Formats: sequence, structure tokens, C-alpha cells
Amino acid sequence: MSSKPLDYENLNENVKKCQYAVRGELYLRASELQKEGKKIIFTNVGNPHALGQKPLTFPRQVIALCQAPFLVDDPNVGLVFPADAIARAKHYFSLTPGGLGAYSDSRGIPGVRKEVAEFIGRRDGYPSDPELIFLTDGASKGVMQILNAIIRGEGDGVLVPVPQYPLYSATISLLGGTLVPYYLEETANWGLDVNNLRQSVAQARYKGITVRAMVIINPGNPTGQCLSEANLIDVLKFCYQENLVLLGDEVYQQNIYQDERPFLSARKVLMDMGPPISKELQLVSFHTVSKGYWGECGQRGGYFEMTNIPPKSVEEIYKVASIALSPNVPGQIFMGLMVNPPKPGDISYERFVRESKSILESLRKRAHIMTDGFNSCRNVVCNFTEGAMYSFPQIRLPPKAIDAAKKAGKVPDVFYCLKLLEATGISTVPGSGFGQKEGVFHLRTTILPAEEDMPAIMASFKKFNDEFMDQYEDHKGYSRM
Amino acid sequence: MSSKPLDYENLNENVKKCQYAVRGELYLRASELQKEGKKIIFTNVGNPHALGQKPLTFPRQVIALCQAPFLVDDPNVGLVFPADAIARAKHYFSLTPGGLGAYSDSRGIPGVRKEVAEFIGRRDGYPSDPELIFLTDGASKGVMQILNAIIRGEGDGVLVPVPQYPLYSATISLLGGTLVPYYLEETANWGLDVNNLRQSVAQARYKGITVRAMVIINPGNPTGQCLSEANLIDVLKFCYQENLVLLGDEVYQQNIYQDERPFLSARKVLMDMGPPISKELQLVSFHTVSKGYWGECGQRGGYFEMTNIPPKSVEEIYKVASIALSPNVPGQIFMGLMVNPPKPGDISYERFVRESKSILESLRKRAHIMTDGFNSCRNVVCNFTEGAMYSFPQIRLPPKAIDAAKKAGKVPDVFYCLKLLEATGISTVPGSGFGQKEGVFHLRTTILPAEEDMPAIMASFKKFNDEFMDQYEDHKGYSRM
Repeated sequence: MSSKPLDYENLNENVKKCQYAVRGELYLRASELQKEGKKIIFTNVGNPHALGQKPLTFPRQVIALCQAPFLVDDPNVGLVFPADAIARAKHYFSLTPGGLGAYSDSRGIPGVRKEVAEFIGRRDGYPSDPELIFLTDGASKGVMQILNAIIRGEGDGVLVPVPQYPLYSATISLLGGTLVPYYLEETANWGLDVNNLRQSVAQARYKGITVRAMVIINPGNPTGQCLSEANLIDVLKFCYQENLVLLGDEVYQQNIYQDERPFLSARKVLMDMGPPISKELQLVSFHTVSKGYWGECGQRGGYFEMTNIPPKSVEEIYKVASIALSPNVPGQIFMGLMVNPPKPGDISYERFVRESKSILESLRKRAHIMTDGFNSCRNVVCNFTEGAMYSFPQIRLPPKAIDAAKKAGKVPDVFYCLKLLEATGISTVPGSGFGQKEGVFHLRTTILPAEEDMPAIMASFKKFNDEFMDQYEDHKGYSRM
Repeated sequence: MSSKPLDYENLNENVKKCQYAVRGELYLRASELQKEGKKIIFTNVGNPHALGQKPLTFPRQVIALCQAPFLVDDPNVGLVFPADAIARAKHYFSLTPGGLGAYSDSRGIPGVRKEVAEFIGRRDGYPSDPELIFLTDGASKGVMQILNAIIRGEGDGVLVPVPQYPLYSATISLLGGTLVPYYLEETANWGLDVNNLRQSVAQARYKGITVRAMVIINPGNPTGQCLSEANLIDVLKFCYQENLVLLGDEVYQQNIYQDERPFLSARKVLMDMGPPISKELQLVSFHTVSKGYWGECGQRGGYFEMTNIPPKSVEEIYKVASIALSPNVPGQIFMGLMVNPPKPGDISYERFVRESKSILESLRKRAHIMTDGFNSCRNVVCNFTEGAMYSFPQIRLPPKAIDAAKKAGKVPDVFYCLKLLEATGISTVPGSGFGQKEGVFHLRTTILPAEEDMPAIMASFKKFNDEFMDQYEDHKGYSRM
């Protein structure tokens, strides 16, 4: 019999081409080891609850009531739920006539989109239009929707930072477009240099690519840097000059671990610049309930906000969203709760603040423990995690290790990360999954293991790394020169 | 300034090409009228809770506890939740170490996939492998994932029934493939004739199309027919001979309103046929929590099961699923609850049975009221809704109405449905959104308005239709000959 339609050789080539290292070879091997009974520390994905972070109480109370609206009429409800959670659930009942079990409008519940617009208005100091906000099943789905509208074929290029979060490379492959890399400067704390951008665009154009969009991830994933206002102004001007739509991945906007560079949204900086650019530059900004101190990854809630996108295009994006009917409704309610948390005076306010502060403060401590830990290891150098949830140390692999990797048929950083996994159970992602300069090696780990586990994890890493370097280094310490 | 990347003229053409009538012109007009204060009966989408269907109590209790796991330790929990709901929530805690806030494996929670496999095994009498079951954000997303793996370009064709649910036409457009229609026979109760299939494939091949897949919707949407075993055997043989992968959209498998033709899954019939076909034919089957007597559309839960798909291809589908990390976890739990409802002897069993039976019996009554109502109207003929959630009457539009539509720049059935909407507030979908033979006109309505509202809705329809026919018919009653 001839080969069949869903045999490997007959699949869509774009499906085969795309790579998503965050759940790639390392993750699969870690899952196998876990099945065999080995204790695995999954630091491959920014998945806080999987590593023990407790959900915030208030939003979970509200969503539980929304799922079980009959509880509100139960005479005992007040014994189990605080009054402000009950009141908030009633607020969401009023916004969702069919409850959580009904499809919403494909753009999301109008009342929640209004809450998001109000949040953006407060954050940026400029009003936002709910009609230009679409709720999504997490930010990733939103990014995919927008890239799908942009990419027409392999002649269309999208500027993506390298190292990057592989959502971008994978989606661009899947949609048959071309990734145009621009390199972040590791020695300048992963800063963004506009000259690099210009070069990348020039090279792509030389190859016949029409560069149509640029992605920034701020705070950076996997690199952890926060973009300064000056940097953002440069980027916005660049996109304006080059006629690019800017995609602002701002999912880590609550995850800031230093005070010098607070989060600034691309939209605020754009509005501050005033016309003509503020009225013309096309910008789409993404946010999520999966990150911040919420970490509600499994709920799949997110939104994107469109700036200067013409109504006819918004309609087209709406039409495509409607094919899958609606984003999940509980995730939409989470988004509403995230942008509209308890206020001073509310019964649940103090608890909410206590819980969220303790998560954020602990993340800040962990960012320091991890950076310091990596920098204390032989042949490892690591920029501080200014924001987001990741540490991205450079591992200076000795030539003998690179040779050994080649013999094993592995990319050198994959070789290192697999050995790390087998020795310690720490499941990371090799830097090659995010892209990096030729001959330079990294790994990405989240800063999410529990604070009390951190010293042991870093000690375990150090021990492995020391032994690895002992094994593969001719002259101990030579590459630290 | 030159036109910008997200201006309409620069969007991906496939995005612009696709059409999704279920939320198209009629829905948009209905939304406008609603904003203006008109009472709208939304029968455009199978969205039971939006029309007043109450959620089943037990699954909502379980999911509320899963969202608020701290309730389980509350001494008052037993006052508000029955013991079996608490026990079931604990079962799901054990399957989700990070709770609902953690990303699951991108294929879904292993323990829930096992529950789905056990359900399929009980239903079909053949064991099912959890490794070949992927959970999804509703069935639509699953269909899109599989079509994405199949379609390589416009030379690839997918056989789709006409009339069809526009998820298929829209997704095929979006992915740049070619829809190959096969017509269902309205006069044979929307039956499927294999000769039509052969003709469609021959025509497509003549045009240079490689037909790679076939879609069946059983029970039918919008047509409501249930496929007989003989029909399914014909389809399976045909796919085998023609080397097609069969996509079995079986989301309405619980929605059956007659006893002559109970639901039979394509997989069961395939397994009954035995080797070689049962070992070779590639089949993907889809299910959801949105339909049945659950109607939990907003939760976005679903699954697909793959039969005879080689492991390397399953891996590729897994990889693509992993780009968006995981389907929403609460929706996965709903899927688990749906395939594993309360059992005889459980505290919640009787209530669950009472609630689900009353929904199903009422749907059956409504299917009859609606079919009979349409068939009592002038120039309207309608097959009985054997299954699913829709009525799809043919409207025999008089030539003068067709002329009037042309003058108004509307497709005739859109013209009729718009007038119906303005006159009565009933929001339907014109048959042209599903495809139909040249010169034949239909509309689709759900059978979901509350049973007690049905007589008034059908009377309002009849009154509108009479007046419409009075206005546009030369000789009253002539086209009923």
C-alpha cells in the first residue's frame, strides 16, 4: 500500500520544520526519567504553580463561585466565602448572561474588555478603547493570531530578538514566514542596539525579504533585561521609519526585580512621543494571567491590544477569532480579576496584598540567589535577571566537551544540559533552543523553584558543573581568564 | 505615507478569504439591534447556556472545588458540597500536582486522557490508547490542528459535506487548502451517497487536486441526520480505497432524538470491519464538552483520538500543540467529568440523571416542535432533526423575492434571514453560509430556545413567513405544488 496522508513523509512541511525547544528533547527525556522514578525539577517552563506556588486566594474564590452560581443562593455560602468575593462573582454574573458555560463574543466578554481598557488607561495615563482589545486563550494564542494576519508567505520577514522565546520562531515556521534575527548584546546586559536592527533589516532585504513586523519581549525572555525608555523610543522610531508593525510581548510586566528600570509599556512610550508617530505606528501589545504573581498558566487567559490598526483589519482578525467561537470564559474572568484586583477597604484587600507581595519579594530574592549561584561556578557567567522569570547563564564549554558532544551527535549545549539532567534532575532548556551567536553556549532555567530549595539546587548545579569541567578541561580554570 | 503592514490590503490573503457565517453578517446585525434595545433570540450558534439551559450541578461542584482547593480543608465545606463532589475533586488534585493553575502536558493531563480512553473503550467495545488521545480547547481547535498537519497547499483537497459546518470551509481557506464538496441528499433525509463522493473526487482530481482527507459530521450539522451503520461502512471503504484520512466530527454523539438510528462511532464501525482496513485506515475522531446535555461551550474542553496514525506523526502533532503550551486545564477536567459521570450509588447520581434526562427529553420535544412548526409554514419544508442541535428548513423563495434580494445587493437567503431578524428578533444563519445547491435556499436555527418559548417563536416565525410570502408571491401557495 502506498503511504498514507498522515504518514510522516506526507505531513505539511511547515509543521515538520517548526521547533519548540521549551518542550523539546530535554523535556521529553526529563519526562521519561520521571516515569522511571527519578525526582525531576522542571525549570524548563515558566510554570509557577507546578513548582509549588500557591494561587492567590481571592480570584480563586470568585471563579469558584462563578463556576457554581447556585452557591450564591446557599444560606451557608457566607461561612465559606467572603462577602467581597460573592459581590465580585455577582458582578461577573451580570457580565455573562449565560454564565461560564456559554460561548462569549469571539473577542471576549465586553465588560471584561472594558476592565482591561480601564487598567491600561490607569497604567499608561492614556485612555484605551475596549473595541481594540481582544481576549485570548493565553498570550501565545494572541501572538499566533496576529502573526497569522501578518505573514503571507516566505517572502515576509519578522524581526525577532536572539536569544528569543521560541513561540516566535515556531509560529513563524508554522505560518511559512521568515524569521529575521536581531542579536541582543550579552556584554551590554542583553541590551538592544538599533544598529544591529538596521543591519538585520538590510541583510534581509538584500535576500528579497519584505520585513513587516518586529517583536520585542520586555522584560526579556529568556534574557531577563528590562528595556529603558530611551531603548523603547529607538525601537519605536525604527519601526516607524521602516514601516514595521511592532509586537510588544509584555507578559512579564509585573515581574520586575530591580528599581532602576520599572516596566514601561511600548504603548505609553509611543503615546508620550506624540503625533505623527503616536497616531500612525501600528502596535499590538500582549498580556496574560500566566505570569506576574498570578502564575495562572493552566487557566489560559490573556489579551492583546491593538493601536493604530484600521477597523477593516480589526474586523478580519475578529472574523478569524470567531472560527474557534470564543476564548475560554473562566480565563477571561481571571483576566478581569487580574486587571481589577481588590481595592483598599475591601475585605480581601490585605490578604491579597500580603499574598502577592510575598510571591514577588521571594521571586526577587530567588533572582539574586540564582544569578550569584551561576556566577560562582567555573566557566559560567550570567547577567542579573532584572525582570521576567528566567536565568540565562552562558556556559563556556571547553573544546574537549564540544568534541565529546559532536561524537555523541549532540549540539554542545544539549549535551551539557542532558548531562545536567541525568546527574541532578534539573530540567533546563539548552540555549540553542532560543538562538545564540555561533560558538557561544547557554542554558535557560526558570527562577521558580521554591526559595527554600534554591540553595540545594544551586549547590547541586555547582557540583555537577565542577565535575563536568574537571572532566573536559585540560587546564583547570583556563577559560576563566 | 505608504500603506502599513496591518492595513487591510496588506493582510494575509487566506485570512481575508475565509468566511464564518455563524458569526457573520446576520450575527453582527443582531448584535447591533440588541444594542439598540431590541430583544434578540440568538439561535445562530449552538450555545445552550446562553439560551437559559442550566449547567449540570455535579461537574460544577467538582470544578469549583478544583478552582478553590483550600475549600476542601474548610470545616464547613460539607455544608455546601456533597461528599462525592469533594472526593472527585481530590481525585483531580491527584492528577494535577500543580492544580488548575499549572500548564499540563501539551497533550492534556495523562490521567484525564486515561479516563477518555476508558470511556471510548466502554462505548465501542474496543480498547483505546490514551497516548493517541489529545485534549484540546474545544473540538474546533482539534480540527484546526489536524487540518494544519494535513494541508500542504492549495493542491491539497479535503472532502467536506455540503451543507457543512463552516468551521471546515473557514479552516481550509485559512490554511490555504482546497475544499472539495460532496452533496448530501435533502430528499433522502440528508443521506450520503457514495456515488456523489466518487464524482466529487474524480472532479477534483481532474482539476489537479490531491484529495487527502474526508470530513463527516455525525450527527449532522446543520442537517441533523444520523449516519446508519451501512452508510458508515460505505464511507470507511471509500476512504480506504481512495487513501483518505477520515475526520469524524462526532461532537453531537449524545444528542439523538429518535431510536431507530442510535449513535455509532466511526471507530467502532471500523474496528468491527476487522483487518486489513481496521489496522490501516487513518481516522481522527473529535468530541467536546460543549454539546450533549452538558452544553459547556464557554469552558472550551474537547479531545481528538487518533487511529492508525504512525508515532512519528503523532510526535509532530504533539510538537505543534506544545507551541501554545497546553489546553486550558479546567476544560480538561470537564472532559474527564463528562466521560466519567456519577455512578449508581453515588450521592449525586440521581440528581445528575434527573438533570441530564430532563435536558435531553426537552431537546427531543423541541426538535419535534420545530420541525412540525416549519413544515406547517407556506413554502417551507424541513427534515426532522434526528440528532445534533439544529433545524435546517428549506425556504422556497418566490422569484419576486429573489429579484428583490438582488436589488438590495443581498444573497436571497441572507435577504430573507435579515427580514426575519428585523421583524421577529430571531437570529438565524442563512443556508448559504453552510453551502447548498444552486437556487435552493435554507436557514439554520438551533433547537435551543426554552421549550416554553418554542410555540411563541414558531408562531412569530409563521406570521413573518406568511407576510413575506404574501408580499413576494404572485399566486399564493403556487410553489407548494
